[in-house]
Amino acid sequence: MSTKKIIVLGGDGFCGWPTSLYLSAQGHEVHIVDNMSRREIDQELNADSLTPIASMDDRLAAWEETGGEKIGFHNIDVAADYHGLRDLIEDIQPDTVIQFAEQRAAPYSMKNETAKVYTVNNNISATHNLLAAIAELRADIHVVHLGTMGVYGYDGDGLQIPEGYLRVYVPGENRDIFQRDILYPTNPGSVYHMTKSMDQLMFQFYAKNDHMRITDLHQGIVWGTQTAETRRDERLINRFDYDGDYGTVLNRFLMQAAVGHPLTVHGTGGQTRAFIHIQDTVQCLALAIANPPAKGEGVKILNQMTETHRVRDLAHLVAEASGAKVEMVDNPRNEAAENDLDVSNKGFIDLGLEPMTLKEGLLTETIEVSQKYAHRCRMEMIPCVSTWTDNQKPGVITQIAAE
Amino acid sequence: MSTKKIIVLGGDGFCGWPTSLYLSAQGHEVHIVDNMSRREIDQELNADSLTPIASMDDRLAAWEETGGEKIGFHNIDVAADYHGLRDLIEDIQPDTVIQFAEQRAAPYSMKNETAKVYTVNNNISATHNLLAAIAELRADIHVVHLGTMGVYGYDGDGLQIPEGYLRVYVPGENRDIFQRDILYPTNPGSVYHMTKSMDQLMFQFYAKNDHMRITDLHQGIVWGTQTAETRRDERLINRFDYDGDYGTVLNRFLMQAAVGHPLTVHGTGGQTRAFIHIQDTVQCLALAIANPPAKGEGVKILNQMTETHRVRDLAHLVAEASGAKVEMVDNPRNEAAENDLDVSNKGFIDLGLEPMTLKEGLLTETIEVSQKYAHRCRMEMIPCVSTWTDNQKPGVITQIAAE
Repeated sequence: MSTKKIIVLGGDGFCGWPTSLYLSAQGHEVHIVDNMSRREIDQELNADSLTPIASMDDRLAAWEETGGEKIGFHNIDVAADYHGLRDLIEDIQPDTVIQFAEQRAAPYSMKNETAKVYTVNNNISATHNLLAAIAELRADIHVVHLGTMGVYGYDGDGLQIPEGYLRVYVPGENRDIFQRDILYPTNPGSVYHMTKSMDQLMFQFYAKNDHMRITDLHQGIVWGTQTAETRRDERLINRFDYDGDYGTVLNRFLMQAAVGHPLTVHGTGGQTRAFIHIQDTVQCLALAIANPPAKGEGVKILNQMTETHRVRDLAHLVAEASGAKVEMVDNPRNEAAENDLDVSNKGFIDLGLEPMTLKEGLLTETIEVSQKYAHRCRMEMIPCVSTWTDNQKPGVITQIAAE
Repeated sequence: MSTKKIIVLGGDGFCGWPTSLYLSAQGHEVHIVDNMSRREIDQELNADSLTPIASMDDRLAAWEETGGEKIGFHNIDVAADYHGLRDLIEDIQPDTVIQFAEQRAAPYSMKNETAKVYTVNNNISATHNLLAAIAELRADIHVVHLGTMGVYGYDGDGLQIPEGYLRVYVPGENRDIFQRDILYPTNPGSVYHMTKSMDQLMFQFYAKNDHMRITDLHQGIVWGTQTAETRRDERLINRFDYDGDYGTVLNRFLMQAAVGHPLTVHGTGGQTRAFIHIQDTVQCLALAIANPPAKGEGVKILNQMTETHRVRDLAHLVAEASGAKVEMVDNPRNEAAENDLDVSNKGFIDLGLEPMTLKEGLLTETIEVSQKYAHRCRMEMIPCVSTWTDNQKPGVITQIAAE
């Protein structure tokens, strides 16, 4: 494997940190860029990671002490500081830049107008500043971006979601049939998902105009917290979000089970979603980095997910494993109550991904991590209180069902 | 006709100013919001409007002196000042907000990285701040946005460009055929056009999530300068851009003819584009305002253009009318050398638009306006020097062809 120089924008976050460590362990030269905004939002929400995450200095020192190669760190707000970002890229001359530096929680992006405006301004400016900087430097750098399955929307009619592009046919006049290969039409369900759809258009343009190499990874819902690298030392532990804004659904169930809270299912729990374990996330990133698209090939779009599940089935799975109770609460989101979902992930499978699944013991590991840090849980942070529209109620248990 | 309270964001600009006057003349209560950024760019480029535009104070005073109703003015940077915009909307309680407050020149958006970053940050934040403010206020306000025909791209294969949405068919497995109504897939040709494509996604989301009423007008290339209202007084004159960044192609030909400059055709001049006269622009706006979509109907998309022409045909038309010479110069843009274009504008025709065309004497009027102010022309500002990529040359005459 050829080693590369890699800048990880947003390398302090839930996906960014374990990815940085994994790539470093693989022998790549890794530079983390982060303005620590996710930790600031922790402060704002008064909802810390369940796991006690160390400062960046301590994280990086621990990595070296446990045998890791030195990882660089640069505190830059890439959305606000175009020149800082450009100068860093010019200085490091990376082969790859991974763009994780976006506000990544759908509920937070719908929390209030300040959060909506922040999410749009931060995510769009961060991604565009990166593209504009690479264009300015005329550098041949592979951009790898974390998108989301959510750009596709969840009102599937049975058509399998392909990897980014769709061949469609349009009847014209005079019995002509026009064939077009189009970006799969997006139908984002939150301001956050909307920004990822908007990112796609920026990638399409810069790949066309500047022949930039770009890979866009449409990721499912990540679960789990630890990877082989973050387990090396307590100070390397990854964050674990359990609150109503940042906690992802399966991790919330596992953590609720661990602390004796009922598993809160939104609506009927009939939502079918795509999932991936954090250990597979970091492997997908490494595969994407090793396989950039050719110059002028257009944006490479891969669906980064390993399995689909209906939310209520997951709740029952966790309930069975843990003895926890399931509670149906009002759905604070504006989404279809029930949906099917069929997604192709042929791209990563062809690249050699061997997905792990829910059945492989990691459910238990995540419950154990949750139990270990259960004393850090603030129970009042568990409900989802960010609502999508005026008509909706928070996802709060108002009444415990009678036995 | 029912009169409305209307806020015009970007009401000092080339389309915004005559629209504001027309709506005021129609009896609507008009409030202009502008941070005068277009005039600042004049300073930056050292390329003033050919016509001498008065200060906003003088413009508004002249409007009242010539019998117009009072028009309000508010200097707010709507991209940067979310709360200023929201408070103004709360205060005025408009029926309609027109969103013209975007950087609107494709060449300027490709000029350099600073202009790219500005165009994205300004255009996206301005539009999103408006949508977020209306969502926060839970107000039933009709948003009318100026988009561009350019979002569609110009690599047409003979399929008529519909008004925003396209019915497509996708073959699935098992011989199923899936039918979808999708946003017409965009293929923007500059950072400016890209922002208008991104706007579409924001409109789609807010129309879906908040049942907002939104009309998106995909406008062709505007030509002409004066309308019935701007002719009332010298101080009401509309701006006329002739420089390589902001001048639009037909206006540039007319002005070049007026000042004795060769008509500069980019590449082969085989580009076919959609056109509309500024007088029709203001009428389209009034029709759009009078016919908002129903709540929950989704975004209403109309093609705001009246005719299509091939660029070299326009050059020859102007050359014939004026005796000017045609010069082919390198195309500074990254675009197809030749394309056909077939666009539906059934929406506005059905609403009652009676389009004027190039044949109706307005070519001469625009040449006359150009001649009147020819002494203000700075010839060195005429060439297009903003290039799309590194490989391209500015659209400058390097050699005058031998007779």
